[in-house]
Amino acid sequence: MQVRRIKDGPERVYAIVFQTGDNPIEGLKAVARDEGLGGSSVTAIGAFQRAVLGFFDFERKDYHRIPVAEQCEVVSLMGNVAEGPDGPGLHLHAVLGKCDGQAVAGHLLEAEVHPTLEVMLFGSPAHLVRRKDTETGLALLAPSHPETA
Amino acid sequence: MQVRRIKDGPERVYAIVFQTGDNPIEGLKAVARDEGLGGSSVTAIGAFQRAVLGFFDFERKDYHRIPVAEQCEVVSLMGNVAEGPDGPGLHLHAVLGKCDGQAVAGHLLEAEVHPTLEVMLFGSPAHLVRRKDTETGLALLAPSHPETA
Amino acid sequence: MQVRRIKDGPERVYAIVFQTGDNPIEGLKAVARDEGLGGSSVTAIGAFQRAVLGFFDFERKDYHRIPVAEQCEVVSLMGNVAEGPDGPGLHLHAVLGKCDGQAVAGHLLEAEVHPTLEVMLFGSPAHLVRRKDTETGLALLAPSHPETA
Repeated sequence: MQVRRIKDGPERVYAIVFQTGDNPIEGLKAVARDEGLGGSSVTAIGAFQRAVLGFFDFERKDYHRIPVAEQCEVVSLMGNVAEGPDGPGLHLHAVLGKCDGQAVAGHLLEAEVHPTLEVMLFGSPAHLVRRKDTETGLALLAPSHPETA
Repeated sequence: MQVRRIKDGPERVYAIVFQTGDNPIEGLKAVARDEGLGGSSVTAIGAFQRAVLGFFDFERKDYHRIPVAEQCEVVSLMGNVAEGPDGPGLHLHAVLGKCDGQAVAGHLLEAEVHPTLEVMLFGSPAHLVRRKDTETGLALLAPSHPETA
Repeated sequence: MQVRRIKDGPERVYAIVFQTGDNPIEGLKAVARDEGLGGSSVTAIGAFQRAVLGFFDFERKDYHRIPVAEQCEVVSLMGNVAEGPDGPGLHLHAVLGKCDGQAVAGHLLEAEVHPTLEVMLFGSPAHLVRRKDTETGLALLAPSHPETA
């Protein structure tokens, strides 16, 4: 993983490039923690050699796993970074393109880059906070939460 | 719907979170009108309990409706806000992921959030204008229109 | 193609609108070159009357072509601009929606707009550089490359 801040000042924009074998979820969490980015948005394109997408199952209160056990283009990776109980947390959704163009879409649970993933991270000094929702068990974004003041 | 401006200054970035039952199209229109955001771009992820996508039919000069009558992940919601004849108008396209990862994609005509939709709105002080295109009947973005000066 | 800078200052945001028959890949390359945008990110929605998507074939070290020979909604177009050996180069991935909502996804190789493509380009004064990767033959983003300093 290589990180470069391409803009400084009130808003910080980072170009982050992942390489073969990298885990982009853990990598982005580390950047967010190291750079103090509590409220950011992320877009990315590239390719994975494998991934697991998720679809939230409200009965089980957990993600149904959708394995993508093949090389695929990362056609859209979109999401945000917010402060959770254990530090910065990521919420990422991905559209993956298979060799015939078939699109598979869902919550990004696992991913292994090959050969590259090019991320733009738009960091904000504001801290967005996630709070556990008692109904679903999900950590939902709570922009008006007092801790965000 | 909860709104929080996470960056101020020349460019304004808003984190907007919708909750179960919210209509995000009407909600974003209200934010754009109330905050005077005439030229903005939008990205979002989350989930809907139902939606209707559209595919523009040039013969009928109207959208062919593609109902998605089930819970789905909002894997990509992307678009912009521009001034139309009736105030700020939204143009949003969505990729939705079904329970098996199948992706459905089109113009967003209707949507009902469940349990959350996390929107980042990048507001610009500039006013983008839409003008009715006589050939298609669509209100197309006209960035060089004199009213935008 | 119409171009309008909607924000000036350290970061430059452009609204770029393409019309029927335009080639958006060549158009965006021209804007990047004319405006000196060496490190930018791009999002867009609209519609194409035809396109060719690509899936990178590591054996042939070239893209497998996936023709989309029909009118389609551009539901997500995402990517970046970086300096390559021949000037600014684009890396764009697209999710296209067919008339029944079927999503097709991949690297954007060719596209012809109809009737509009609405692009937001977030330009950065920093210059991102692409370097040829000897293993794959691909020009990969190299953010920490000395030429970017």
